[in-house]
Amino acid sequence: LRVAVVGLGWIGGSIALAAREHAGASVTGWDADVAAIDTAVEHGMIDRRSASLEETVADAEVVFIAAPVGSLPELVAQVLRCAPDDCAVTDVGSTKRTVVDAHSDPRFVGGHPLAGSEAIGAVNARADMFDGATWYLTPAGTTSASALGRVRELVVALRANPVELDADVHDELMAVVSQLPHVFANVLVAQATDARFAGHLEAGPSFRDATRVAGANTAVWTDIYMSNRDALGTALDEAITRLTHVREALTAGDASVLAQWNDGAAVARRHLLEGRE
Amino acid sequence: LRVAVVGLGWIGGSIALAAREHAGASVTGWDADVAAIDTAVEHGMIDRRSASLEETVADAEVVFIAAPVGSLPELVAQVLRCAPDDCAVTDVGSTKRTVVDAHSDPRFVGGHPLAGSEAIGAVNARADMFDGATWYLTPAGTTSASALGRVRELVVALRANPVELDADVHDELMAVVSQLPHVFANVLVAQATDARFAGHLEAGPSFRDATRVAGANTAVWTDIYMSNRDALGTALDEAITRLTHVREALTAGDASVLAQWNDGAAVARRHLLEGRE
Repeated sequence: LRVAVVGLGWIGGSIALAAREHAGASVTGWDADVAAIDTAVEHGMIDRRSASLEETVADAEVVFIAAPVGSLPELVAQVLRCAPDDCAVTDVGSTKRTVVDAHSDPRFVGGHPLAGSEAIGAVNARADMFDGATWYLTPAGTTSASALGRVRELVVALRANPVELDADVHDELMAVVSQLPHVFANVLVAQATDARFAGHLEAGPSFRDATRVAGANTAVWTDIYMSNRDALGTALDEAITRLTHVREALTAGDASVLAQWNDGAAVARRHLLEGRE
Repeated sequence: LRVAVVGLGWIGGSIALAAREHAGASVTGWDADVAAIDTAVEHGMIDRRSASLEETVADAEVVFIAAPVGSLPELVAQVLRCAPDDCAVTDVGSTKRTVVDAHSDPRFVGGHPLAGSEAIGAVNARADMFDGATWYLTPAGTTSASALGRVRELVVALRANPVELDADVHDELMAVVSQLPHVFANVLVAQATDARFAGHLEAGPSFRDATRVAGANTAVWTDIYMSNRDALGTALDEAITRLTHVREALTAGDASVLAQWNDGAAVARRHLLEGRE
């Protein structure tokens, strides 16, 4: 099996390592940053150095594109221009509609492994990064069954669990379970930074848990917010509506509405998270 | 030193134990529930059984009232009616304006130990519950210096750190660092419970951290929300305004506003939590 990895950071490096170790693949790799290619060679992530992006993907059966979400639409287009006809091309961006919309190529299927979104550097790449992880695949109507099948097989070989999902639903889901918690965390720390509280703030565990991701890597997260701005905007509208309802119950002094709302949250939490912690 | 504890649950029981063990106090106790008094006697929390609330506080130098916030204003009034003239009376409610407003008695000073808010039962009471914990004290203009001094000394003897704070600022602070994270957690789980996401939701660490307190004990938390509804209402208004600004930046597609906002959150988080984790 011949695999090409475009973008040799933490995620791309881990895919390369896992493809070599777990799928017995021969792996080529490319990165706009020459130092990243050096690191990949040094750490045995790729079999050999290529002279160009074109050469990297020329022989590939599967191409993984692991770049920041903002640069994905253009990079995917570039890869599709030079990849073989019978190749499967996928990406690992954490939002999918933008990149899926940009391409109606039968070789392309959107992907998103749940393996962290922080840029922590290629040197921390690991072959076991995806062991047991959910790996969303968001095929479009134009995606060929063979491309989807080939990517799915390789994802399984990388020891992840492929989960097929509509690109819109994927993005709406990520807006709620990933981006909204980041937005809420940012709001909480900003709101606690008030002169009145200076010297008195003693943050308990609920505040610490809720703000752990506040101010996460700005370059990465601005990119994510922007690339998913439709779904995140809708999720924010919905959150604002929910908060307004709580506000109204407080104004009305209606304890029974608050109790019912809190009971509903307890049921929802059990339903969502039970057995997953 | 003669200490009386009114309300022998988890917090009250721990105060009684700590007062006996760390302050060498003789402790009387009372609870509306006779079984709670039995437990307190059995676990050596109190020195002797009293026949009534009146008898419990008759000789006390300091009275701690450890009851749900909703019942505090009335219970504090009841204790003040029968406590000695030179006694100090304090409570442990997690919101302070309501109870402080209800009493302009020189013997009374509001208090709030940060030791968890869940009703986990008197049998889990521990003498070391308050070791190193912040214990807010919110004296009013009417509070006598001797009452404040006596409560403060005992709080130190219980091994907690007394922090004096205006009752309004205390409630505004708790709205932001404790109640708002609970409200956000409830909103997140409700929003993730959408038929579109059924079977696809794979909650990552940011979602799990942000929703750990969702649907916390409804009786306790409805009481807390209601007793702090002015400050929480204001905090919610401010949160909604902040979320609306993020929404507007998304609509405008303004990456620089989002980047600046996220950088601000990173600074705020470091400022608030550094050295506290």
